Amino acid sequence: MRGTVIGGKKICIMAGPCSVESERQLLMTAHAVAKAGASVLRGGAFKPRTSPYEFQGLGEKGLKLLAKARKETGLAIITELLSEDHVEMVADYADILQIGARNAQNFQLLIAAAKTGKPVLLKRGLSERIEEWLLAGEYILANGNPNLLFCERGIRTFETYTRNTLDLSAVPILKKESHLPVVIDPSQGAGRSDLVVAMCKGAVAMGADALLIEVHPNPAEAWSDGAQQLTLEGFAKLMEELRPFAVAAGREI
Amino acid sequence: MRGTVIGGKKICIMAGPCSVESERQLLMTAHAVAKAGASVLRGGAFKPRTSPYEFQGLGEKGLKLLAKARKETGLAIITELLSEDHVEMVADYADILQIGARNAQNFQLLIAAAKTGKPVLLKRGLSERIEEWLLAGEYILANGNPNLLFCERGIRTFETYTRNTLDLSAVPILKKESHLPVVIDPSQGAGRSDLVVAMCKGAVAMGADALLIEVHPNPAEAWSDGAQQLTLEGFAKLMEELRPFAVAAGREI
Amino acid sequence: MRGTVIGGKKICIMAGPCSVESERQLLMTAHAVAKAGASVLRGGAFKPRTSPYEFQGLGEKGLKLLAKARKETGLAIITELLSEDHVEMVADYADILQIGARNAQNFQLLIAAAKTGKPVLLKRGLSERIEEWLLAGEYILANGNPNLLFCERGIRTFETYTRNTLDLSAVPILKKESHLPVVIDPSQGAGRSDLVVAMCKGAVAMGADALLIEVHPNPAEAWSDGAQQLTLEGFAKLMEELRPFAVAAGREI
Amino acid sequence: MRGTVIGGKKICIMAGPCSVESERQLLMTAHAVAKAGASVLRGGAFKPRTSPYEFQGLGEKGLKLLAKARKETGLAIITELLSEDHVEMVADYADILQIGARNAQNFQLLIAAAKTGKPVLLKRGLSERIEEWLLAGEYILANGNPNLLFCERGIRTFETYTRNTLDLSAVPILKKESHLPVVIDPSQGAGRSDLVVAMCKGAVAMGADALLIEVHPNPAEAWSDGAQQLTLEGFAKLMEELRPFAVAAGREI
Repeated sequence: MRGTVIGGKKICIMAGPCSVESERQLLMTAHAVAKAGASVLRGGAFKPRTSPYEFQGLGEKGLKLLAKARKETGLAIITELLSEDHVEMVADYADILQIGARNAQNFQLLIAAAKTGKPVLLKRGLSERIEEWLLAGEYILANGNPNLLFCERGIRTFETYTRNTLDLSAVPILKKESHLPVVIDPSQGAGRSDLVVAMCKGAVAMGADALLIEVHPNPAEAWSDGAQQLTLEGFAKLMEELRPFAVAAGREI
Repeated sequence: MRGTVIGGKKICIMAGPCSVESERQLLMTAHAVAKAGASVLRGGAFKPRTSPYEFQGLGEKGLKLLAKARKETGLAIITELLSEDHVEMVADYADILQIGARNAQNFQLLIAAAKTGKPVLLKRGLSERIEEWLLAGEYILANGNPNLLFCERGIRTFETYTRNTLDLSAVPILKKESHLPVVIDPSQGAGRSDLVVAMCKGAVAMGADALLIEVHPNPAEAWSDGAQQLTLEGFAKLMEELRPFAVAAGREI
Repeated sequence: MRGTVIGGKKICIMAGPCSVESERQLLMTAHAVAKAGASVLRGGAFKPRTSPYEFQGLGEKGLKLLAKARKETGLAIITELLSEDHVEMVADYADILQIGARNAQNFQLLIAAAKTGKPVLLKRGLSERIEEWLLAGEYILANGNPNLLFCERGIRTFETYTRNTLDLSAVPILKKESHLPVVIDPSQGAGRSDLVVAMCKGAVAMGADALLIEVHPNPAEAWSDGAQQLTLEGFAKLMEELRPFAVAAGREI
Repeated sequence: MRGTVIGGKKICIMAGPCSVESERQLLMTAHAVAKAGASVLRGGAFKPRTSPYEFQGLGEKGLKLLAKARKETGLAIITELLSEDHVEMVADYADILQIGARNAQNFQLLIAAAKTGKPVLLKRGLSERIEEWLLAGEYILANGNPNLLFCERGIRTFETYTRNTLDLSAVPILKKESHLPVVIDPSQGAGRSDLVVAMCKGAVAMGADALLIEVHPNPAEAWSDGAQQLTLEGFAKLMEELRPFAVAAGREI
């Protein structure tokens, strides 16, 4: 995957907008996050929205923009796969296939993703137990694909201050129960950009192998999830603030 | 759908095994539930299992057995749809397509199911809010299919005595918020056959339009979810016990 | 307790305002619910409020009003006990001591209540498992008081349409696990008066021995929890509507 | 409180056994944690147990042992207050009064604790929202006691691998919403000693002002909660491992 290693000494930073919205938005973000030290660009082309009347993503046009951003910046690409019918198309463009929380137990999609041979990032379901998550991961492994990443993105709790409750204990637990890399998504976990920095520090201290962070040139005008996206400047500052915690954890960023 | 009306004065009873296991098992159940008053036969041919190492269902062979049971008994057939790739096959055999809790927000599957034109029974997700469920239902309606049934099957709570907590308040709430029929699945809700009778009484008293009940000739040897399936005799007895509650609710069974 | 039996053929109806507010409010309600068939008057004199800046109840003045209402109507009195320091005072006035959800595991209060010898109605905690609830009940029984009532009042879930999710499966479960009467509080469970009738029907159908219902002469101006209180007319109508379900369940109202 | 400052540059470490069991157990632990750098000794004399048939604590005998340990080691004492009737007794011995999760909304106990003037550590309830927790804290502040500490100890979720889910996002949230010190209890949060080190690292990285850690000379024979207590050696090792994270966070241990 473009020379990127996930699970090594260097903590892998995946960053980019919630949704791919336009060439300008995506390229501006890609160059900024690459400069600040990210190695993977995230961006949704197919969006699973609670309501059919919300923006559903740019589709293949979004995938083409991601490919263009990769060509310009050298960043690897991670993007969400929603449908068995899109597996080939998405796998043609993406370096890592992301399975979202709402599809965490959509086993047919997991099998289809596994069969592409591409690395699969499997998010935890909204109220999924870790044992269920590990077993869902078995649908990837048992279908011949060893390149599996587990991504904690917050679980549903009664707390209303945050969108979800980021369960950072998933990091040491997954480290005990599997040999696979653990990714933390603080943006979905918090649903508020003002908590992302603290959550990244905690994730790094607890041993996360990678972070998946939403970054947007202008969060206030984002087409989806504006409240949880960092600005380009905010992301660059975050990278600086994380360094001492990475060092304390015996890692690099 | 074979002359069955759901949402009328008569409460529609859907009954049958969790999984289709064999011709003998299915036909014996079908004849028994038809005789006791059911009008729809349930049975899973494709099973969404937490682990890939568990029984995954008989697949198309199971669908053929369901079709045979329909021919012999006149019961309509409801069975679960798991994969966009199986939509045509399942729609060829089934009278009602069931979307399970783990796919409650698998929007691509909902769209594919909607487009068959067949009635769709949409189960509530494991920790789905009613508003989210209604919006998921919009994926069916907005794709041109008005034949939507909502099915409450229990939500995940901290309670360990039951497998899930059956939220019977969903009945009056859905009656206020939509015009669509409401189905209650007490078997999944309880996860224990000894609570099914009481839960059916509550559901009928609160206005449910249909019940979806797991019945097996020999629950102790069922290939999946044995603990929550009624025996054939238990089901016949349940039907008798429900009658006075249906009458009290101004309905028939 | 004033000749009232809970757990017999007749379903016991406990009704009254969330908070005792004034003599006029309480007596008007007491006469109306007595006339409609209730046998116990509820009303909070000490209120456990999430914030210290909300109305905390009339205290002993409220207890005196409850006693006056009892004298006028013959209804037995149930009221909440909040503090070990008030045990004697509250037990002097009340026929049944209510322990609220927030004190469900306040074991010192349970012990103090048990030692009065008065019947104790123990509400289920906000996210308490039935096993924990049964064990909390043991704090009453083990302190020499056999007059214990379990009251389901809804558990906290992710659902936002209702204030809590009324777990009606608690009725058959408690019937299996203990010999003690089971009370259902649909008002707290729903948090909305428009769902109370349906929930009462479900509770009666499933075998509840008693109902605890909030009733207020003018819910819109109630000092606490107005949205979930029935009007006097609404309560009388409810009583009529419940009769056929009680009959179907082999009970009386 | 014995010169201990909580909320300053130095992270305050509170450590000791779940329950006070014997003089030998307590003194051995007190000396060990003092030597390793703790400044407060924890230990329960009154224990809130789910069942009345479990060990309920040594009571005043336990308080006397805590006082003896303080005299020998200079450590301040924190211990749980369960009952309004014990307020004076417990306040006579303790430097900090702990209110446990089951009493998080036992407002009468909070008021009684506040009135002692002693610092109060208020644990978050089992499924309490942060807003509710802050309002419960107002019961302390509004009763004239400004010495309030908030302690996150895990919330109830569906996860079964851990006893509770430690919500580390509470640290930055409380820092935004109040000026008060934030304490993290990883022992209750995890319910497993093997996760405590990682959780402490996360807590320190995210800005916690204090840690409350269960330590026992022989966890396998502890009278309560053995699975979550560190050994004396484990605690000393933890203190060493935390130092680089404290430095990264601009703090000391």
